[in-house]
Amino acid sequence: MDIKRSSQEKIKRLRPTPRWSDATVFNGIAHFVEVAADTEQDMSNQTQQILAQAETTLAAIGSSKASLLSATIYLTHAENAATFNAHWEAWLPAGCAPSRACVKVELLDPKMLLEIAFVAAVNEVKDD
Amino acid sequence: MDIKRSSQEKIKRLRPTPRWSDATVFNGIAHFVEVAADTEQDMSNQTQQILAQAETTLAAIGSSKASLLSATIYLTHAENAATFNAHWEAWLPAGCAPSRACVKVELLDPKMLLEIAFVAAVNEVKDD
Amino acid sequence: MDIKRSSQEKIKRLRPTPRWSDATVFNGIAHFVEVAADTEQDMSNQTQQILAQAETTLAAIGSSKASLLSATIYLTHAENAATFNAHWEAWLPAGCAPSRACVKVELLDPKMLLEIAFVAAVNEVKDD
Repeated sequence: MDIKRSSQEKIKRLRPTPRWSDATVFNGIAHFVEVAADTEQDMSNQTQQILAQAETTLAAIGSSKASLLSATIYLTHAENAATFNAHWEAWLPAGCAPSRACVKVELLDPKMLLEIAFVAAVNEVKDD
Repeated sequence: MDIKRSSQEKIKRLRPTPRWSDATVFNGIAHFVEVAADTEQDMSNQTQQILAQAETTLAAIGSSKASLLSATIYLTHAENAATFNAHWEAWLPAGCAPSRACVKVELLDPKMLLEIAFVAAVNEVKDD
Repeated sequence: MDIKRSSQEKIKRLRPTPRWSDATVFNGIAHFVEVAADTEQDMSNQTQQILAQAETTLAAIGSSKASLLSATIYLTHAENAATFNAHWEAWLPAGCAPSRACVKVELLDPKMLLEIAFVAAVNEVKDD
């Protein structure tokens, strides 16, 4: 049997806006990006916000922080890395850390102190 | 039946050069990066070039701008974000925005004002 | 037959630490990031270290430099791009270059001159 599948039909998007979706899921792989909802806060608080937001996003797409594959961590100040790492390591389940890159950039809103782009595995239900 | 599949055989590459391929496709996922072909132009024009180039790349690999999963947008000037966003939102089909990160960096050619790394879903034809 | 597969069970991680894994593999896709083990060295040497480390990582996960899908190259000095490119092009097998983005950022350790985030295809053994 020949089956032509359209990739577009199979993409799931979480809260698409004209500018971005909060997450996309395709072929068991999710992409999502988090910045702190409240950027008036300090590094410790913004990190905690982002990690909590990531858990909410992961739950919404049927995944969890135990299924992260990759994290690209954008920090605006290298001296904030220690604060970030303390929260990050406390947050990750043992043995489940993703691959990660961590670089210093500027972000579009000067009050944002970090932004993280995640790739995660998503549970799949397969009918055969 | 035991089938050992070689991943290398299954990777498709669009216009490979010694330095990069214009796109790679594997397991229904495409990776490609665009910078403006003509970097003598301003932000508005470079953005339009990149979005048009992305459409051409997507068409060449059997995908389209409705199947973007992730975009990492590198801008050299934060003040160019508004111009970028206007073109970006006009370009994306309704309800189809990818996950996106947007950061300010420097690019290798000082005339480049932006670079975008995309991940997209690709239609698959499956014989069962 | 209905099969519910857990993504978490299917993720393979290379040398997970509390902060990162040296690589993750899921659905035939690997994510890994390299920085030079010895950051006292110059750009040429750090580049060679990273490319050798990448080969070791790829071998450990059942892949090779002929199966790279994407590379995000973070350089701390744009003037180091020529040195990087010379090693990069000599290292890649003919016709096998990945998609690539190359940007200038700062890295967390000021002695690091580059960091590369890779995505690669991994050989899959399938029983049908």
